[in-house]
Amino acid sequence: MSLLYALDLIGTAAFAASGAWAGIRRQMDLLGVIVLGLVTATGGGTLRDILLGDLPPFSLKDETYLYTSIVVALAVFVGHRHFERLHHPLLYFDAIGLGTFVVIGTGKALAMQAGPLTAILMGVATATAGGMVRDVLSGQVPLVLQREVYASACIAGGAILVVLHHTAVPPTIAIIVAATATIAIRLLAIWRNWQLPRVNDRALDEK
Amino acid sequence: MSLLYALDLIGTAAFAASGAWAGIRRQMDLLGVIVLGLVTATGGGTLRDILLGDLPPFSLKDETYLYTSIVVALAVFVGHRHFERLHHPLLYFDAIGLGTFVVIGTGKALAMQAGPLTAILMGVATATAGGMVRDVLSGQVPLVLQREVYASACIAGGAILVVLHHTAVPPTIAIIVAATATIAIRLLAIWRNWQLPRVNDRALDEK
Amino acid sequence: MSLLYALDLIGTAAFAASGAWAGIRRQMDLLGVIVLGLVTATGGGTLRDILLGDLPPFSLKDETYLYTSIVVALAVFVGHRHFERLHHPLLYFDAIGLGTFVVIGTGKALAMQAGPLTAILMGVATATAGGMVRDVLSGQVPLVLQREVYASACIAGGAILVVLHHTAVPPTIAIIVAATATIAIRLLAIWRNWQLPRVNDRALDEK
Repeated sequence: MSLLYALDLIGTAAFAASGAWAGIRRQMDLLGVIVLGLVTATGGGTLRDILLGDLPPFSLKDETYLYTSIVVALAVFVGHRHFERLHHPLLYFDAIGLGTFVVIGTGKALAMQAGPLTAILMGVATATAGGMVRDVLSGQVPLVLQREVYASACIAGGAILVVLHHTAVPPTIAIIVAATATIAIRLLAIWRNWQLPRVNDRALDEK
Repeated sequence: MSLLYALDLIGTAAFAASGAWAGIRRQMDLLGVIVLGLVTATGGGTLRDILLGDLPPFSLKDETYLYTSIVVALAVFVGHRHFERLHHPLLYFDAIGLGTFVVIGTGKALAMQAGPLTAILMGVATATAGGMVRDVLSGQVPLVLQREVYASACIAGGAILVVLHHTAVPPTIAIIVAATATIAIRLLAIWRNWQLPRVNDRALDEK
Repeated sequence: MSLLYALDLIGTAAFAASGAWAGIRRQMDLLGVIVLGLVTATGGGTLRDILLGDLPPFSLKDETYLYTSIVVALAVFVGHRHFERLHHPLLYFDAIGLGTFVVIGTGKALAMQAGPLTAILMGVATATAGGMVRDVLSGQVPLVLQREVYASACIAGGAILVVLHHTAVPPTIAIIVAATATIAIRLLAIWRNWQLPRVNDRALDEK
C-alpha cells in the first residue's frame, strides 16, 4: 500500500501542476493559481468521498495532499518560465495519476459494497472531476468531455478492477493490472492520437 | 409507490435526453454526451441527498437510474438525426419529470422533518440542479435562471405538498395533487409563453 | 455568541445582495435573482458543512439564513434603481461578512479537531465559495481567483485564529482578534488597492 501512496502523491503533484498552469494562463493571481492547483488535485477524490458518504474526505484527513498541492502550485508559479520544458514529462506523471486515482476510487467503492457501475463511476470521478472543476473555474467547457481518450481509459481500468474483484485474483495483482491498463491506454491514446466518435454535423449549427 | 417509480424513470430518461442533446450540440465526444446525460438526469437528486445527508445518494443505491441515463444518452447519440422530431414529445416527458422530481424531493425532505422552506428548496433542487450543472458544463449560464416558468412551477408544486402535508389529506392524494399542479403550470407556461419579471434596464449595460 | 449570530446575518444579507445584483446585471428573471442571492449567501457555509460531514448544513437547520437571503434578494430586485448608491456601504457589510464567515468556518473546523491547514481552508471556503458559485452561474471566471486581496484576508484571519487556538488566549478574544484582522486587511486592501502578484507575461498568449 506504500507504493500506491507514493503513486497517489505523484498523481496529486501532476494534477496540481496542471491546475496551477491553467490559472497562470488565465492571468489569475497567486492565490487563484494555488486554489486551482488544490481543486484540480484533490477535487475528484473529495467528490468521491462526498458521494460515498465518507466525510470528512481523504484530503482533509491527511493534509499531505493539501501541502503537496500547494507546494507544487507555488513552484509552478515561481518557475513558470521553465514550465514549457516540463510539459512532456508532466503528461507521463498525469497518466500515472490517472491510473492510481482510478484504482483508488473504484477500489474504495468496491470495499464499500457499491454496485459495479457505481464502482467504475467512482474511479472515473476520482480521476476526472478535479480537472472538470479546474476547467469550469477557468471559464472553459471541460476538456475531458470534448476530446481524447482520457475518461475512457479510466472506465476501462475501473471495469478491469471490478471484474478481477469478482475472481480469485489477489487484490494487489488486480490493482496493478487495472492501474497499468489505465496508464497504457492513456499513453497509447496520446501517442496514436486516438479519439472517440462525435457528431460532426454541420446541420447542428443551424439548430 | 410503483407508479411514482415509473414516472421517476420517465423523468430520468427525459432529463438524460436533454443532457445528451446539449453535449451533442457542443460537439462533445461520445463520452462527454454520456456524462452530460448522466449528470443532468441524476444531479438534482444527488445534490438533494448530499444536502440531506442521505449518503450514498439514491443514484448510487439503485443503479437503474444510471443504466437508464446511459442507455438514453447512447440512443440520442446514435439517433441524433431524428432527435428534432422528438423535441415536442420530450417537452411533455420533461414536464412529467419535473412534477415527479418535485414531489419526491419535497416529500423526502418532509419525511426527514425539514422545515417548510427547506422542503420546497429540496424539491426545486431535485428538479433543476441537474439542468444547471448541464448548462455550466456546456459553458452556458443556466437557462432556468434566465427564462421561462420552470423552477417557479416547482416552487408552486412543492408549496402545495408542504401545505397538504400539514392537513388531513392522505399522502397519496397530496402527492398526486402537487405533481399534477407542477406539470399543469409548466405546460401552461409553455403553451402561453409565460415569463417571470426581470429588470430590463438599458442603464444596466453601462454599469 | 449572540453578537456573532447578528454579524453572521449581516454578512449573509450583504452576500445575498451581491448575488442578487450579479443576477440582475445578467438580465436573469426574478427567480434567477433569488437563486443567485441564496447561493451566494449560503453556498460557502453549506460546502464547509458538506466537507466536514455535518449534514444537513447550517442553512437547512436554521431557516433564518434562507429567509434573510430571499428577502434581501427581493429587495435588491425591487429597488435596483437605488442600488448604485448602496454600493459603497455594501463593501463594508461584505467585509463584516468576510470576517464573520472566516471565524465561524475556521472555528467550526477547529472544534471538530481538524488540522491547521484544513481549518484555514474551511474558513476560506465559508467566506469565498458562495461568491465563486455566483460567478460560475453567471458565466464568469470567479473574481476571487483573479484580483484583489479577498481570500488572502481570509487566510490571514484563519491563520490567526488557528495560532491563538493553541495558546491560552480565551476563545472569545481569539475570535474577535481574528475577525477584526480579516476585516481590517480587507478594508485596507480596498482603500490602498492592494494586489497579489500574478504572471503577466505576453509570451503566455502564444502558448
